[in-house]
Amino acid sequence: MPKNADPRACSIADALELVGERWSLLAIREILHGVRRFDGIARNTGASRDILTARLRKLESVGVIRRELYSAHPPRFEYHLTESGRELSDVLAMLMKWGDRHLNPDDPPVRWWHSCGEVLEPVVVCAHCGKPAREGAHSPFGRGVIPA
Amino acid sequence: MPKNADPRACSIADALELVGERWSLLAIREILHGVRRFDGIARNTGASRDILTARLRKLESVGVIRRELYSAHPPRFEYHLTESGRELSDVLAMLMKWGDRHLNPDDPPVRWWHSCGEVLEPVVVCAHCGKPAREGAHSPFGRGVIPA
Repeated sequence: MPKNADPRACSIADALELVGERWSLLAIREILHGVRRFDGIARNTGASRDILTARLRKLESVGVIRRELYSAHPPRFEYHLTESGRELSDVLAMLMKWGDRHLNPDDPPVRWWHSCGEVLEPVVVCAHCGKPAREGAHSPFGRGVIPA
Repeated sequence: MPKNADPRACSIADALELVGERWSLLAIREILHGVRRFDGIARNTGASRDILTARLRKLESVGVIRRELYSAHPPRFEYHLTESGRELSDVLAMLMKWGDRHLNPDDPPVRWWHSCGEVLEPVVVCAHCGKPAREGAHSPFGRGVIPA
């Protein structure tokens, strides 16, 4: 195998670097559930206040969440997802599905209704043909592909 | 708000606990790319050997990967995804899409062909109606829903 000092160029690695840490994703989950204040996010995730503070600052700095003042004296903020933050719910949906199937098969802790009237069952498909993405994916290409 | 000492019951948290760590997900990425041996996975992820050893052991213990002996003297192993491991590619696909859109919009490092003949563009839809999951999800229910 050829030596290459650099790891694979990859948007998965880049995304994990910014938003992939456990407490970050759980904070995003809470905001999706409508829990927007620090105390509620801390309580429902179980994150320590120090770690949660750092994670929320990072998520704000990369544009995934924004703060809104809801009390001026003392200053207090609510957290909202930006558009790029809302897009991360696709990642969370697939993590939830995996956990439901493999870790909580008899009793999924949270389910969501979908606008079609059914309980949401998220699947990843190809936008072009509508068929499952996973089974049909093949032959990766681009600068992140490393010759065997 | 009512006090609850326990964090939210949630398959996202459970899944992150088992497979959500950065190096674990990057190791799974490498196996999806067909890189099955320790040295290749270490090189392409950039993980330290100690951390990668620990992550691979954990992934094996939770049934996401399995080892196959490819050399008896000395004993050497290749890593393969189980069915539950392959299902995690749905999570990775959506992380990759997010990273492509927000971090590498002009030059996605890796793309995949899909069996339909187009470049794969993964989207999360509702299995029942085929419409986007995200915009239509509402009214979560179950024991993991915490009253406001």
